[in-house]
Amino acid sequence: MRATVMHKAHDVTIENIPDATIQQPTDALIRITRACICGSDLWPYNGGPNVEGQRMGHEAIGVVEDVGSDVQTIKRGQVVIMPFVDSDGTCMFCDEGLQSACVHRGFFGTGGELDGAQAEALRIPMADGTLYPLNVGEEDALMPGLLSLSDVMGTGHHAAVTSRVRQGGTVAVVGDGAVGLCGVIAARRLGAEQIILMGRHAPRIELGKRFGATDIVSARGQEAVDQVRELTHGFGVQSVLECVGTEQAMDTSMGIVRPGGAVGRVGVPHYEVIKGAQPMFYNNVIVAGGPAPTRGYIDELLPDVMEGRIEPGLVFDRAVDLDGVPDGYRAMNDREALKVLIRP
Amino acid sequence: MRATVMHKAHDVTIENIPDATIQQPTDALIRITRACICGSDLWPYNGGPNVEGQRMGHEAIGVVEDVGSDVQTIKRGQVVIMPFVDSDGTCMFCDEGLQSACVHRGFFGTGGELDGAQAEALRIPMADGTLYPLNVGEEDALMPGLLSLSDVMGTGHHAAVTSRVRQGGTVAVVGDGAVGLCGVIAARRLGAEQIILMGRHAPRIELGKRFGATDIVSARGQEAVDQVRELTHGFGVQSVLECVGTEQAMDTSMGIVRPGGAVGRVGVPHYEVIKGAQPMFYNNVIVAGGPAPTRGYIDELLPDVMEGRIEPGLVFDRAVDLDGVPDGYRAMNDREALKVLIRP
Repeated sequence: MRATVMHKAHDVTIENIPDATIQQPTDALIRITRACICGSDLWPYNGGPNVEGQRMGHEAIGVVEDVGSDVQTIKRGQVVIMPFVDSDGTCMFCDEGLQSACVHRGFFGTGGELDGAQAEALRIPMADGTLYPLNVGEEDALMPGLLSLSDVMGTGHHAAVTSRVRQGGTVAVVGDGAVGLCGVIAARRLGAEQIILMGRHAPRIELGKRFGATDIVSARGQEAVDQVRELTHGFGVQSVLECVGTEQAMDTSMGIVRPGGAVGRVGVPHYEVIKGAQPMFYNNVIVAGGPAPTRGYIDELLPDVMEGRIEPGLVFDRAVDLDGVPDGYRAMNDREALKVLIRP
Repeated sequence: MRATVMHKAHDVTIENIPDATIQQPTDALIRITRACICGSDLWPYNGGPNVEGQRMGHEAIGVVEDVGSDVQTIKRGQVVIMPFVDSDGTCMFCDEGLQSACVHRGFFGTGGELDGAQAEALRIPMADGTLYPLNVGEEDALMPGLLSLSDVMGTGHHAAVTSRVRQGGTVAVVGDGAVGLCGVIAARRLGAEQIILMGRHAPRIELGKRFGATDIVSARGQEAVDQVRELTHGFGVQSVLECVGTEQAMDTSMGIVRPGGAVGRVGVPHYEVIKGAQPMFYNNVIVAGGPAPTRGYIDELLPDVMEGRIEPGLVFDRAVDLDGVPDGYRAMNDREALKVLIRP
């Protein structure tokens, strides 16, 4: 079968690899009908250790082709959402709705034991705990929005939840990528009154406004901090959705959060320490967040997608087949595309 | 009048200073009937910049001697609790119950504009917002417990609240000082099932057990982390109450918190950064806490003190008059006394 393989910086190719198969009795095999490229895929695309041979892709919708003998609830022919981590559905963390901390957790498409979803098919471990079955056809018009529940919409929601967005609250979203824009949707959905989107790319800003951003800050560094403070009577915001993962984004986040406020981190951190431990303390600032339990959030978010109350599928502004994936990486890396949908 | 003044490391004296007076129409003047020495007072006692001349003490109960012309609710003759910060009672942060972030906040007895409470009398700014009147006589037998609501019990409660202690939860308290022991009380009060007290001083450990600690870990460093993990099926605890403030205590806290758990910091941090930003992220660990809004917590905690359901006053194991204060500092610094109560 054909799949996406990373070799080194700016070298990602579509290759023939051995067919995905059932290996454990709790596995399912899915044919990928939709996948996409994530902002976090651009980190290996821009180089790094141990990238050679990495199977890519961790967001997908597929059709169940086969199930192992111990799979109980997932059936052949079902259309399913594949969250970006697998989860057993039975451990204490899954019970609490934190499937991304499942004791058997693995990340798809990040070079570990699990293969990638930017491919024709994929083996899904612990299928009953991992997959979320849908009552739609595989070509339903809502596919982009449903696909976003695999990662990007659930991750934006996690940033909003962990930064404690509340009815009438003040919010800043750091980063105008697809996760940040879904963070705007999530903040609006949870009732925030002021939503400051921090970014500098005109088409993304426009989409952010459509999603509910009330203010835009396009500066960086101290100037950005000053502008957010001006917009918030000098205090900063109650909730910061950190959707980038760089040290600068975290510095900005800590600069714009008000006393008693919270920073919800969902950008994969490319820094080792959280600076400002003392001002953070004296201001009772909370730092939270991490990999989103998107599996657990689907129950809450799915009805809003199905009934059109939220439209996270709009973050996809380009669609390719597998052959188009390498150019999709290039286009996202060049900020020519916001988020690329794949129809294998 | 007589008051406690810090000069340099291990040099704290009782001196005559100008009498406290009403300076603003919103001030009250209180005669101090009970004060105490805080673990955080030992930081300047052990030296540091700008210590010379610092008026000490930030925890007190007193009797209102006089009030300014604009004071509305506080009356002469009332017995009042003085929280360790002043607060206007009207700003957005006070409205939210985060009086320790009041826009007019000041800390008593830390070398700033506000004088110290280890003295015969004290000027209280913004008296209506700051002071909490009690319906007890000034020599009530419950005075030690009531005094603890000024700081140490409210601070232990804040550690429990910000670390999200819940019914049936698993908890570790880092530090067996007075705040840590009050953290044990708070965790028990909020329904925690397992409360691991981390400390090594036999009398404090005994008191911790009386307060509700279910397990004791007296090791330090990696050995302590390993022991807490053994006590929690390898996962760590849901809530860590960090009641010390050293880098080592924070390292331990981050080592024993389980995925999805929270560290509530109330020990004044003597470190600049929070290490382990990446494992903290991958485990969805929350770091929260700061100066406790003890003024706001009194409503909730006072009935339990008045009716004897909690006994935080037991943390006071020595009582002195003003002349005994210097030796009280020495005794606390030598760990000969847990917490010293002062009757000026």
